[in-house]
Amino acid sequence: MDLIEGVIKNKLSEKRLIHTLAVRDTALALAERWGANKEKTEVAALLHDYAKELKSEELIKIAQNNNLIASSFDLLQPQVLHGPVGSFLINKELNIQDREVLNAVASHTLGREEMSLLDKIIFIADMIEPGRSFQGVDKLRELVKHDLDEALIVAFDSTILFLITRNEIIHPQTIISRNSLLSGK
Amino acid sequence: MDLIEGVIKNKLSEKRLIHTLAVRDTALALAERWGANKEKTEVAALLHDYAKELKSEELIKIAQNNNLIASSFDLLQPQVLHGPVGSFLINKELNIQDREVLNAVASHTLGREEMSLLDKIIFIADMIEPGRSFQGVDKLRELVKHDLDEALIVAFDSTILFLITRNEIIHPQTIISRNSLLSGK
Repeated sequence: MDLIEGVIKNKLSEKRLIHTLAVRDTALALAERWGANKEKTEVAALLHDYAKELKSEELIKIAQNNNLIASSFDLLQPQVLHGPVGSFLINKELNIQDREVLNAVASHTLGREEMSLLDKIIFIADMIEPGRSFQGVDKLRELVKHDLDEALIVAFDSTILFLITRNEIIHPQTIISRNSLLSGK
Repeated sequence: MDLIEGVIKNKLSEKRLIHTLAVRDTALALAERWGANKEKTEVAALLHDYAKELKSEELIKIAQNNNLIASSFDLLQPQVLHGPVGSFLINKELNIQDREVLNAVASHTLGREEMSLLDKIIFIADMIEPGRSFQGVDKLRELVKHDLDEALIVAFDSTILFLITRNEIIHPQTIISRNSLLSGK
């Protein structure tokens, strides 16, 4: 784990490093609460934003060259590609081979259908780590201790509401991921 | 037009017939305001709910046999198929061949990417005809006189908010149609 911490200390800006370490701590607390594998949780949390500081053009180039574009909306909002591209790069550059870790990194922004326990923990930890502030975040921090799936649904819903308020594009994968959680309840 | 009115008088329940005639009147007023072809508007409005009273199993059967299933979500919410199935049936049973009319009937529930003027008029007339009542409908009736696209966006957004409030599935096509209007502004 020291090796991974060393890598991201070199790679990320100070602000993003602070966020990443906070996601790690939040995710580990959730892994404890919900019974996820702690080592995988820590690796996925530390690496979730591995590609976050790449420019849009770089994200698009890597995604196009490696068949990571899942929807035309990815090109309208290239920043959503940092999940799939990050997953691709940690496999290639750091030799991370664990499929659960790779999936959790890939899906941490838009979710996916039938999210795994680790996917859910990384997704929600990213959203509620102590540095985050938005309307409803404290409720979400409480809810996640009692009902992980419901917390995810509320998280997706508040993202959708936020985008509607701002007149911004909503990525269809956000809806598909939300629907999948709702159907699973 | 008398022939079409005769057909739907036989086909629809009284409640749905009243709704349909109200959609026709609302759509014709919008056609006048926004410069759409009145004959096409009237045909599309009168026939928009042609398949609405079919049962879910019938909708699914016709849709499956004729390649009208666009998304796995259509099977989760088969009532959304009444647009595409209605469009298919008025072509087959009434020999309606006008592509603009067929598209407007097909897309009147979920919209589509790059909606035509006629699509927009039928979609919004269905939502705001005088018999409809929901929060914000009066604002929408006013807005549509001034900005048709903005009225469509507000209509999609209120559908999404309604579904979120009710913890219901959101069809991804609703999001894709909304995004397309937003990108076109």
